[in-house]
Amino acid sequence: MTTELPGTGAPERTARRGPGRPRNEGLDGQVLAAALELIDAKEEVTAARIVERSGVSRAALYRRWPSLTALTAAALDVGREMPPAIPAGGNLREAVMDALLGGATAGSGPVDYPEERFRQRIRLAMSDRSLQRMYWTSHVSRRRAPIVNALRAGIEEGELRPDLDPDACFDLIAGVFYYQLVVRGESFDGPATRGRCRAALDVAWQGMVAVTPP
Amino acid sequence: MTTELPGTGAPERTARRGPGRPRNEGLDGQVLAAALELIDAKEEVTAARIVERSGVSRAALYRRWPSLTALTAAALDVGREMPPAIPAGGNLREAVMDALLGGATAGSGPVDYPEERFRQRIRLAMSDRSLQRMYWTSHVSRRRAPIVNALRAGIEEGELRPDLDPDACFDLIAGVFYYQLVVRGESFDGPATRGRCRAALDVAWQGMVAVTPP
Repeated sequence: MTTELPGTGAPERTARRGPGRPRNEGLDGQVLAAALELIDAKEEVTAARIVERSGVSRAALYRRWPSLTALTAAALDVGREMPPAIPAGGNLREAVMDALLGGATAGSGPVDYPEERFRQRIRLAMSDRSLQRMYWTSHVSRRRAPIVNALRAGIEEGELRPDLDPDACFDLIAGVFYYQLVVRGESFDGPATRGRCRAALDVAWQGMVAVTPP
Repeated sequence: MTTELPGTGAPERTARRGPGRPRNEGLDGQVLAAALELIDAKEEVTAARIVERSGVSRAALYRRWPSLTALTAAALDVGREMPPAIPAGGNLREAVMDALLGGATAGSGPVDYPEERFRQRIRLAMSDRSLQRMYWTSHVSRRRAPIVNALRAGIEEGELRPDLDPDACFDLIAGVFYYQLVVRGESFDGPATRGRCRAALDVAWQGMVAVTPP
């Protein structure tokens, strides 16, 4: 489940891609595009359909992805970028808030990641736990790294409380965004939703900062 | 969407029901049980199937529920109880933590609410935004009231920060639980999951308490 997947928007790929060049290139891109078409059309992703739509042979498909689950997870991640590392020495709070709210408030989701696809991704994850776990391991958990690392650095530098669990903190601050979409059924472009997320993040941050000695 | 639905576990019904009596009684119960069977079997909830399984006529069905969406939302809520009000004067932190962690840590979900049904509920909500909004309005948002009210009381009494938005705080503390199930794909009975939730709630609470004047 920790297999390196091609075409996932993992750092090394993102780094290679210039800003103006098309996202999906070559066979990987054709396969991922075909999978995404099926996902967006709410059709089941099968090898036969991918072969038919992409023109890539079944053998080539399975040389590139160990399973349809891995391919589906990779397709669901197309358009999601690895956030850049947060540089040390700046305003940690602002940098983390920007990283969290920047993408989420620009529109109803990250660029190239429409809200309907987000909903479909959650739907597929709820239907298929192995897909959910693979998407978590190969994609989501990696994208957490820049912020989790920045929190860890903040703890080491004494800006954040020494007893914090950076992973639990990330769950807390990311959870509030998922709550809006998954439970409330809100989009991110509503000002009330944005305001609630910002207020909740303020509370979380307040709970994370080190208490200055009296 | 704010119509009072029968058989939803809303306060007045919960209050009428003795602790030892069966949850679903009469026609309402037969209809809800039939809808739940369909949901658990991952079959579409249709009027024809409900009529067939419950023996309740289509006319009676629509006298009781304004729509299939409302009926589905009510069925998804069976087994979820309205939490009791948090009495004033006690240890607010402990009461809120118990209310949050009590149900979630007793097993893989609230009693009578299996995790697979939770996953199916999220799946249906992601497929159907009107169901999601109805479930939110008629069920989830009501169940938030005891804790949101307790937070509001804590603000008024000066235990919590005066500038808090109780709804945003609830989103923050509830979001961390959804993150475990929806994003990480974890069950609540894992000790690591429980530990992360508890650590995250500690951070949130720390961010909510009023700073004592120096």
